[in-house]
Amino acid sequence: MAHLDAPPPAGIITLLTDFGTADGYVAAMKGVILSLARHVTLVDLTHEVPPQQVAIATFILSAHFYYFPAGTIHLAVVDPGVGTARAAVACCHRGHYFLAPDNGLLDFCSRDPACKAVRLNKPEFWRGEISNTFHGRDVFAPVAAHLASGVALELLGEPVRLMPHQPQPAGKIASGRLLGEVIYCDHFGNLITNISRAELAAFAGTRAIGIHLADKTLHTVHRSYAEVPAGHLVALINSFDLLEIGINQGNAAQAIPAARGTPVIIVTGD
Amino acid sequence: MAHLDAPPPAGIITLLTDFGTADGYVAAMKGVILSLARHVTLVDLTHEVPPQQVAIATFILSAHFYYFPAGTIHLAVVDPGVGTARAAVACCHRGHYFLAPDNGLLDFCSRDPACKAVRLNKPEFWRGEISNTFHGRDVFAPVAAHLASGVALELLGEPVRLMPHQPQPAGKIASGRLLGEVIYCDHFGNLITNISRAELAAFAGTRAIGIHLADKTLHTVHRSYAEVPAGHLVALINSFDLLEIGINQGNAAQAIPAARGTPVIIVTGD
Amino acid sequence: MAHLDAPPPAGIITLLTDFGTADGYVAAMKGVILSLARHVTLVDLTHEVPPQQVAIATFILSAHFYYFPAGTIHLAVVDPGVGTARAAVACCHRGHYFLAPDNGLLDFCSRDPACKAVRLNKPEFWRGEISNTFHGRDVFAPVAAHLASGVALELLGEPVRLMPHQPQPAGKIASGRLLGEVIYCDHFGNLITNISRAELAAFAGTRAIGIHLADKTLHTVHRSYAEVPAGHLVALINSFDLLEIGINQGNAAQAIPAARGTPVIIVTGD
Repeated sequence: MAHLDAPPPAGIITLLTDFGTADGYVAAMKGVILSLARHVTLVDLTHEVPPQQVAIATFILSAHFYYFPAGTIHLAVVDPGVGTARAAVACCHRGHYFLAPDNGLLDFCSRDPACKAVRLNKPEFWRGEISNTFHGRDVFAPVAAHLASGVALELLGEPVRLMPHQPQPAGKIASGRLLGEVIYCDHFGNLITNISRAELAAFAGTRAIGIHLADKTLHTVHRSYAEVPAGHLVALINSFDLLEIGINQGNAAQAIPAARGTPVIIVTGD
Repeated sequence: MAHLDAPPPAGIITLLTDFGTADGYVAAMKGVILSLARHVTLVDLTHEVPPQQVAIATFILSAHFYYFPAGTIHLAVVDPGVGTARAAVACCHRGHYFLAPDNGLLDFCSRDPACKAVRLNKPEFWRGEISNTFHGRDVFAPVAAHLASGVALELLGEPVRLMPHQPQPAGKIASGRLLGEVIYCDHFGNLITNISRAELAAFAGTRAIGIHLADKTLHTVHRSYAEVPAGHLVALINSFDLLEIGINQGNAAQAIPAARGTPVIIVTGD
Repeated sequence: MAHLDAPPPAGIITLLTDFGTADGYVAAMKGVILSLARHVTLVDLTHEVPPQQVAIATFILSAHFYYFPAGTIHLAVVDPGVGTARAAVACCHRGHYFLAPDNGLLDFCSRDPACKAVRLNKPEFWRGEISNTFHGRDVFAPVAAHLASGVALELLGEPVRLMPHQPQPAGKIASGRLLGEVIYCDHFGNLITNISRAELAAFAGTRAIGIHLADKTLHTVHRSYAEVPAGHLVALINSFDLLEIGINQGNAAQAIPAARGTPVIIVTGD
């Protein structure tokens, strides 16, 4: 019997890694998948996660997975512990399937009490020969292909309860200020914070605010980049519903001394 | 009734953006498309257009689209005006479909009197929730999916007459010289000019020519890079039928002080 | 009659080039393929081979092709001699098809006595118009599409015997030492050598060894990166069964003065 939360596979597998695209490692994973599930649709989520940066992988995956159809399988391999005792897991969360090392990459799934997970411990679903350095190709890719072909999640391994590895990124109120930080810097140099539209609204209400980031203060949350002149800093609620600071037609990450981890402080009344 | 110029959709959608591939933005667009048109074939045209450089996007799209089958849908998002009053448009040109912001990206379509265009103003073909910063995902992707699924172009919005935003790049004859410029520099450092094979032939006929670019002069139009020794400058008519200056097994853009916008002057008789 | 070694095409074409992905050249090849073979599955092997570096292309292609299903077509274009008399060839090796310029890229096929090859000299399988600078689009892409559509290899050109252009990379024993070199540096900065697991085992047996690379000496072949502390050098047998020197969660190519071509010397008893 299928769970409401475990829809039939959509025949789509997304891939997220820190492998880059220069070497052929990603292609080898795709070859393994196509060898077992010839008609799956493969979509690259990104392969440019900085090497071993699990938290960045988590942000990208959690921000984008739900634009895919229910039943999509998301294969995510940022795996500094490959070849050690770290578990490889698969789970179902909000109607999507995820496969990854159990190293925090799936923390957004772990926080969902409805998440069903298994530890991948059934070598009959792996490649015949398993390297110690490339489980993306030898374990995760074939398991994803079997899942896409209709093998039920619960057959792929023993049930396991996923636990978060890191605290959830979110804004916090302290001393009458809303405290957050930059959690991601994108290709355009836009600085994405962990302060959500809802957190900002609950904190500020209709009061005037000041947004402090590095040595800059902004007083307005605009609707679009182009509401300020080219070259000017702009704060807006971005397409993830998070507060973002950018520069219209420019690169904020290059222009101001801010990066992942830089504090963002919201105050009222100035 | 179908126009001769409006063939049935080929089930192929190409994507061209300035988003890069690091962040997952392109993948989110693909997820939206596959949610609505599961069996479409997705092809990346490029996502490495320099941020907000509409003219470079136009060159790449106009140079490559017609290698795809008739009925292909080309989705192009370089969109500094996202969230403002700039229109989003779709059109049919030479048997291909194009979707883009109306900011000059489709100037090569606008110059075609047979081009049929609509302004995308029917939210029933968009995502339910529209951000102000990512119409690629929330407007263009779902419209492309509906077009690929058989919704006729004219149903997607109100008819509009596209107008070019920029003058057409082409060589000009003045004072007995053919004047052009570098319009694109490719991955190999080859410098592609706006002087076509036909313009060069009409200007020079059988006369000897000199090609002046930065501090260099070339006197021969070769057939292939390898007709000159490795490391030497070479002028040739490239695979777009445009005059190009490169270095055999080298990088002209790094070796000589030339870039997009550098004048190229053709003279005869020296 | 089909050869045992020439299986039916799998409907998959991989692409490997030195074109990068910024310009649209790869997309044009895909457009040509899809125009002739609409339902083929296209997979990028890599497009980041350094310009004109045939040997690097050969390593990547030979290391990854066999993870794809038998009958996959591998299209590889690193082609400094485009437009000259260099031959364009297709062959079948270990149940896979390969198309490439005859410049050494397919040396791993040439060394296989069972390899069947043809020189591509039948313009009826090419695009109608052939540029002198882009045979990837005008010759190789359409031939790959015809092959994927069921045209037999032997119909695509005249039989030819492929000859290797370069000596085979392999470790050698001299003066009681096993001598190899770095043949590839990957995205993570891992230094991959031409010394195989089997060569190392045959040389060292159960004796203690020293691995000399640049100014470093390692004494242990570990099973995984994480067996040494983060930031430490590690030698291991990688997923290609080759000796590799890396840094756990670091970049060996940046940390030590070694690159493609750097000698690696294995000694025993110290």
